[in-house]
Amino acid sequence: MPRFFVAGANLSGGVAVLQGEDAEHVKVLRMKLGEHLVLCDGAGRDYFCRLTRIGEDGVWAEAYDDAPSAAEPSVRAVVCAAYPKGDKAELIVQKCTEGGAAEILFFFSARCVAHPKEQSFQKRLTRLRRVAEESAKQSGRGVIPAVTAAEDLAGAVSAALKTGLPLLMYETGENRKPLRAAVREAGAFASCAILTGPEGGFAPYEAELCRAAGLQVCSMGPRILRCETAPLVALTAVMAETGNLD
Amino acid sequence: MPRFFVAGANLSGGVAVLQGEDAEHVKVLRMKLGEHLVLCDGAGRDYFCRLTRIGEDGVWAEAYDDAPSAAEPSVRAVVCAAYPKGDKAELIVQKCTEGGAAEILFFFSARCVAHPKEQSFQKRLTRLRRVAEESAKQSGRGVIPAVTAAEDLAGAVSAALKTGLPLLMYETGENRKPLRAAVREAGAFASCAILTGPEGGFAPYEAELCRAAGLQVCSMGPRILRCETAPLVALTAVMAETGNLD
Repeated sequence: MPRFFVAGANLSGGVAVLQGEDAEHVKVLRMKLGEHLVLCDGAGRDYFCRLTRIGEDGVWAEAYDDAPSAAEPSVRAVVCAAYPKGDKAELIVQKCTEGGAAEILFFFSARCVAHPKEQSFQKRLTRLRRVAEESAKQSGRGVIPAVTAAEDLAGAVSAALKTGLPLLMYETGENRKPLRAAVREAGAFASCAILTGPEGGFAPYEAELCRAAGLQVCSMGPRILRCETAPLVALTAVMAETGNLD
Repeated sequence: MPRFFVAGANLSGGVAVLQGEDAEHVKVLRMKLGEHLVLCDGAGRDYFCRLTRIGEDGVWAEAYDDAPSAAEPSVRAVVCAAYPKGDKAELIVQKCTEGGAAEILFFFSARCVAHPKEQSFQKRLTRLRRVAEESAKQSGRGVIPAVTAAEDLAGAVSAALKTGLPLLMYETGENRKPLRAAVREAGAFASCAILTGPEGGFAPYEAELCRAAGLQVCSMGPRILRCETAPLVALTAVMAETGNLD
């Protein structure tokens, strides 16, 4: 059944109107009145619909059933990534959306190389939200991950502590727990946070601060991952371990 | 201890000569005679060395011990990716090198969009091998993954069947096994192959051909991954499940 992402549309009333590109797409698919399609509201719900009108000004559909989007993982994963330089933020958002993140939060930490001015950072966030939406569509997600920002590490830690399993990925130092063990020992959890560092990694005092605040400090093996690679690798390991890659 | 990658150098004789950038790097680090460093031969072995001479023409070091590189996974993973368009091949090579791949093999399948001419493809492979080397250095690998090519799917299947666990990632169709279950049920294996499709995915007959040839057809959950994302996600899941992300 063709699937359309109509983010922000209110489908609960039972009738949806597709316009613009989506309406064009219905026409390109040569869909006919009475045919079935799925409309996803971008907030985790799929509406099973029947086409009721195909006009010049749009396409009408009537919902006859709805259900949670099947592609959404059982764990709400918040990826908190130190803001990277260049276009790596786009890569993080695109890949973590495919990987099943519920939210991608960027923050600034001691060794961040990129320090955009407020205005250009806000523009960047707008662009990153578009990347998340496009990637959500393409990967068949039921939710567009929120792209948010925290001013500093403390802000990210604060957001992470609101989840059931706040984790810091740290590539060096003592007393780190393998990520997989941390996930396994946590048992069932509805949400988790994955913090990853910038190009130069976290400073040791930052890792200690996170530990003191209640985050588990985790390792991901002996290979050093780039700052734009670590979020997807950590997210994938969490998704795999919780059965959300099956 | 500083670590240098001196791929191709014969260190078994006990003496290594660093020249060019590596020699410069030793000088930038202000290393002194008698100080220790690790030289990795790029073939999976680390040599523990002592600096014996720092000259205008190079830096000499004497090996006093050697051991397998600690960063190498216990499983030799061959990532076989359908050749993608644009610069996605670079991304696949860079990320899968970080992820622990032993070899990255590109092949052409029915729905490949990119069809470079032989000469430009060979140039591309040369460039991809440089990407693998750089990524191996940066991530602390002990081995530079080989970047190879097969003319078609049959060539990739043939290479995959030489491993202990040949797997095809396929995003649709019946009778697929979750990747994690396939890895778990395989028990101990020394090598595996991960086949992933091009932009348009594998054609159904290609998936059937792979199955008939002896590959396990695997799923990676309900989200559709881009052709440049699937290799790293599959590799990470295999590495996690085999304890190589701990």
